[in-house]
Amino acid sequence: MATAPLSVIVGVGDGLSASLARQLAARGHSIVLAARNVDKFAPLAAATKAKSVRCDAASEADVAALFAGLAQAPDVVVYNPSFRVRGPLVDLKPADVRKALEVTAFGAFLVAQQAARLMLPAKRGTILFSGASAGVKGYPQSAPFAMGKFALRGLAQSMARELHPAGIHIAHVVIDGGIRSAMRPDSGDNMLDPEAIAASYLHLIDQPRSSWSWEIEVRPWVEKF
Amino acid sequence: MATAPLSVIVGVGDGLSASLARQLAARGHSIVLAARNVDKFAPLAAATKAKSVRCDAASEADVAALFAGLAQAPDVVVYNPSFRVRGPLVDLKPADVRKALEVTAFGAFLVAQQAARLMLPAKRGTILFSGASAGVKGYPQSAPFAMGKFALRGLAQSMARELHPAGIHIAHVVIDGGIRSAMRPDSGDNMLDPEAIAASYLHLIDQPRSSWSWEIEVRPWVEKF
Amino acid sequence: MATAPLSVIVGVGDGLSASLARQLAARGHSIVLAARNVDKFAPLAAATKAKSVRCDAASEADVAALFAGLAQAPDVVVYNPSFRVRGPLVDLKPADVRKALEVTAFGAFLVAQQAARLMLPAKRGTILFSGASAGVKGYPQSAPFAMGKFALRGLAQSMARELHPAGIHIAHVVIDGGIRSAMRPDSGDNMLDPEAIAASYLHLIDQPRSSWSWEIEVRPWVEKF
Amino acid sequence: MATAPLSVIVGVGDGLSASLARQLAARGHSIVLAARNVDKFAPLAAATKAKSVRCDAASEADVAALFAGLAQAPDVVVYNPSFRVRGPLVDLKPADVRKALEVTAFGAFLVAQQAARLMLPAKRGTILFSGASAGVKGYPQSAPFAMGKFALRGLAQSMARELHPAGIHIAHVVIDGGIRSAMRPDSGDNMLDPEAIAASYLHLIDQPRSSWSWEIEVRPWVEKF
Repeated sequence: MATAPLSVIVGVGDGLSASLARQLAARGHSIVLAARNVDKFAPLAAATKAKSVRCDAASEADVAALFAGLAQAPDVVVYNPSFRVRGPLVDLKPADVRKALEVTAFGAFLVAQQAARLMLPAKRGTILFSGASAGVKGYPQSAPFAMGKFALRGLAQSMARELHPAGIHIAHVVIDGGIRSAMRPDSGDNMLDPEAIAASYLHLIDQPRSSWSWEIEVRPWVEKF
Repeated sequence: MATAPLSVIVGVGDGLSASLARQLAARGHSIVLAARNVDKFAPLAAATKAKSVRCDAASEADVAALFAGLAQAPDVVVYNPSFRVRGPLVDLKPADVRKALEVTAFGAFLVAQQAARLMLPAKRGTILFSGASAGVKGYPQSAPFAMGKFALRGLAQSMARELHPAGIHIAHVVIDGGIRSAMRPDSGDNMLDPEAIAASYLHLIDQPRSSWSWEIEVRPWVEKF
Repeated sequence: MATAPLSVIVGVGDGLSASLARQLAARGHSIVLAARNVDKFAPLAAATKAKSVRCDAASEADVAALFAGLAQAPDVVVYNPSFRVRGPLVDLKPADVRKALEVTAFGAFLVAQQAARLMLPAKRGTILFSGASAGVKGYPQSAPFAMGKFALRGLAQSMARELHPAGIHIAHVVIDGGIRSAMRPDSGDNMLDPEAIAASYLHLIDQPRSSWSWEIEVRPWVEKF
Repeated sequence: MATAPLSVIVGVGDGLSASLARQLAARGHSIVLAARNVDKFAPLAAATKAKSVRCDAASEADVAALFAGLAQAPDVVVYNPSFRVRGPLVDLKPADVRKALEVTAFGAFLVAQQAARLMLPAKRGTILFSGASAGVKGYPQSAPFAMGKFALRGLAQSMARELHPAGIHIAHVVIDGGIRSAMRPDSGDNMLDPEAIAASYLHLIDQPRSSWSWEIEVRPWVEKF
């Protein structure tokens, strides 16, 4: 009997992770959900028959343990976490800037490195990074988020150039706009529907290697850019 | 009985147009194929039950006639044509540079304007432009193609900003690499499979308006970038 | 006695050309001013001891005659002309779109090709293109200008890659904002001072070949971007 | 008697810092040189009558002390440090990736924040970041450098948007290519002459606020890009 493919989603909490988990589970993937707080997504884990793993994405030990605990090489790994603080540059706390870099970019490196090690022997797999418009445009009063998301994009682009020829598909999704949720409902499609974003992630996963995208931007029809 | 959706594909000849026509026809779209030479794609027209229209995309009259002849507003319009000439800048013929701008960019404007006029009343529809890596990177000894494809991208980006809030989805596909065909077979996925490119076009068409992409790049896993 | 260096400025009318002519003349350059209407810049020609040449930059014959009439190979050639029309895409006149491509981009090719032919034997010279923010960002209701300025940037980038190794310095200046003039005075530095823009052109001309820029953006301190 | 303007150069060691120090000193600036190892640039400090300050740019305390020790608000602050390690992604040490982010990007934030605090009251000053082509293109086998330099560019762009309207000029210099030095001589202009790079820094410093650049790329004429 064939083993189900395995998807690992790091950073769970907003609607996107849930949509991804459900859509991948519906395709027959086994799901591993990793986040600092596993309690809050227990219903999602139950609904998708997912394994929950407590993991601080910026912790080298936690990330190593997460991947060491997998029963097989993952087919899909998604990195979502970020830390954001806003304010005038002169008022920012250095600790917050460091944390933005750690959570948004360094953790992405830790996860991607572990994923790549497991994927390389079979020369297949997809690693997806959830970016933001802040990764291509540095907004005022938002230096830490710009630093973290630019660094994440640099990581993704470097990895795409390095690992595509090794058969590992790397993609960076520029999510430009707010994501619709129960707490932020939206009846006019003015916010990103997480189901729609997830559909673009799945399209990236489905692309055959003769026609890979390393980046895609998604934004609501009414969003200024 | 519901009317079938209508797709208009301008510029037929390479494998991409054929793949698009087949995939859209398989979804139940009526297809209109427009090109300067209708004879050479008669088999494709037959296979997809498409209407063939002779059309020089850089001719205002031809493009107006093409859209005037449609039985309904199109749901999807794809613009493919380009003209390419290579060589040292000092040796280029001005007429070839003018032609590159006319076919690659001005014709795209003509087609997109007609398409937008028909799509705007219903506030829906998708207009897709086939771009190239030459539209984001100006290569040496290839000034005319750079000029045409950069201009095409400028048109697409301007239209996306203008027409997305009016409900018309605009997207520009950066095709980076050679496309596989009967004359250029490829057994290692080192060239773009036109079926795979077409699948990305269909994904763009499928995106709901809460999560639109205005651009996507596709390239083979082994392509340097 | 050493011959004075020669600068050719194509497209005269706004403050930038005048500032460039004065600053280059002050350095001892001979100046040639080329434009469709030579009468309106007679005072500038007198002040800079410039030769005036009537020239439609989009006319192959006019541009050929302009360069055939030079007494020596030019050291500096600047291309300024553009044609701009704004409005909803569906209301644009195709003739205006064609004109935008011809004046903004095709003319730039004609001028740059002639300049390159004269500069290549000595493997030296600088060709400068006056771009706009519209060349890097396609604004809504401004498709023709986007098309023209994107194409101009594609030309410049292709030429930079091709001709830098041949000793010809190519640069594209992204002018982002309105230019101050007698008709548009500005006491708060909120508009670009043409003397300041010209100073950046001169810096590009001065760069030794070990450290060339192919592009620079200039905008007022208060300009949003 | 007027006080001399003050320039602070953080990260000293390669030819660029020395050229900057000499060119700024020649203009009458007082110079402060800050680096982890002050001994190795004692001759430069003597030649430019500079004050030397031992400073680990990634240390919050060191950077705070550096700026607290200044006798006046600085007119120019330059940030040079970076940490680079190359190799296959799967073989990188997490500590090296963290260090690349700390030295290349976090230190830049620390320095820029202190500089901005001192510059804002007078609404004037220039902060310059030394970037690299790795900040706009993520190269394979070089993820840490890409992450650091992308983050640096995000910081610079965010600061430019935030602080330009407050009168502080922010600029990011993309240095694309190797820098010529005594240990790496070059007789064909195939490497960047640090004197030429420094001249572009001085041009940025000289720009009046009506025409500011937030970024400039410099590369040798023969460099592929």
